[in-house]
Amino acid sequence: MKAKKEIENFRSSCPVSSALDLFGDKWSLIIVRDIVYYGERTFKDFSQNTEKISSARLSDRLIKLEELGIITKNQHPTNKKVFLYDLTRKGLDLTPVIIEFVLWSAKYLKNHISEESMSLVNDLNKNKEGVIVEIYKRHSLKFKK
Amino acid sequence: MKAKKEIENFRSSCPVSSALDLFGDKWSLIIVRDIVYYGERTFKDFSQNTEKISSARLSDRLIKLEELGIITKNQHPTNKKVFLYDLTRKGLDLTPVIIEFVLWSAKYLKNHISEESMSLVNDLNKNKEGVIVEIYKRHSLKFKK
Repeated sequence: MKAKKEIENFRSSCPVSSALDLFGDKWSLIIVRDIVYYGERTFKDFSQNTEKISSARLSDRLIKLEELGIITKNQHPTNKKVFLYDLTRKGLDLTPVIIEFVLWSAKYLKNHISEESMSLVNDLNKNKEGVIVEIYKRHSLKFKK
Repeated sequence: MKAKKEIENFRSSCPVSSALDLFGDKWSLIIVRDIVYYGERTFKDFSQNTEKISSARLSDRLIKLEELGIITKNQHPTNKKVFLYDLTRKGLDLTPVIIEFVLWSAKYLKNHISEESMSLVNDLNKNKEGVIVEIYKRHSLKFKK
């Protein structure tokens, strides 16, 4: 319902503005990034990421992203108290946005970013399409279930 | 100085998070979008965009983006009371991020976005690299001045 309301509240019919109306805040894209990189995640996994998102904000963004159809929430197969968050196809399709942020930062903030990320950047500079295809392959197994 | 301070305040060494620390808010990217689409803009031009950014917020973001080296501010050649804002190369290099937001919205919000944008989307679907090269060509004339 909230998703419907937000769609009605778009500020314009520009595609950039509309996407930003939905998830144009740092934390939504950080959550998407975590699942793109690491696959399905628990609430605890997200809370322990290096950016130290607060529990209240994390909880708020997870609800919003689920309502928007960008992530799914499913019970852990063996521990019913734990939920696993994963990307839908709609969420996975934000991968190219994430990748372009990586490439911009690699160019302009290169003294700042981690070695682990630089290895991704090197792969992207060699074969961006190939890296994106690999990410999709890894994630899309679940769409075939 | 502020830019330096912000760089020191990065939440992590992840390139996605760091880019979002700098301009991970809707309005910064809307300002970049306007210049990518239409070339150099005045304060009034930005205020009149369809998203109706408030003057205070616009003013704040323009100062921030100039400090970050993403836009430049220059006196209008004939009207000294007016300033023209334009993208630096660092700002223009956000074009691929903007383009990926356009493509995502074209896929998932297609009943909502404007006909004008759909024409851009059709061009992108036919030849994304070609469209980006054209944008760079249009803007890069100024870097040769």
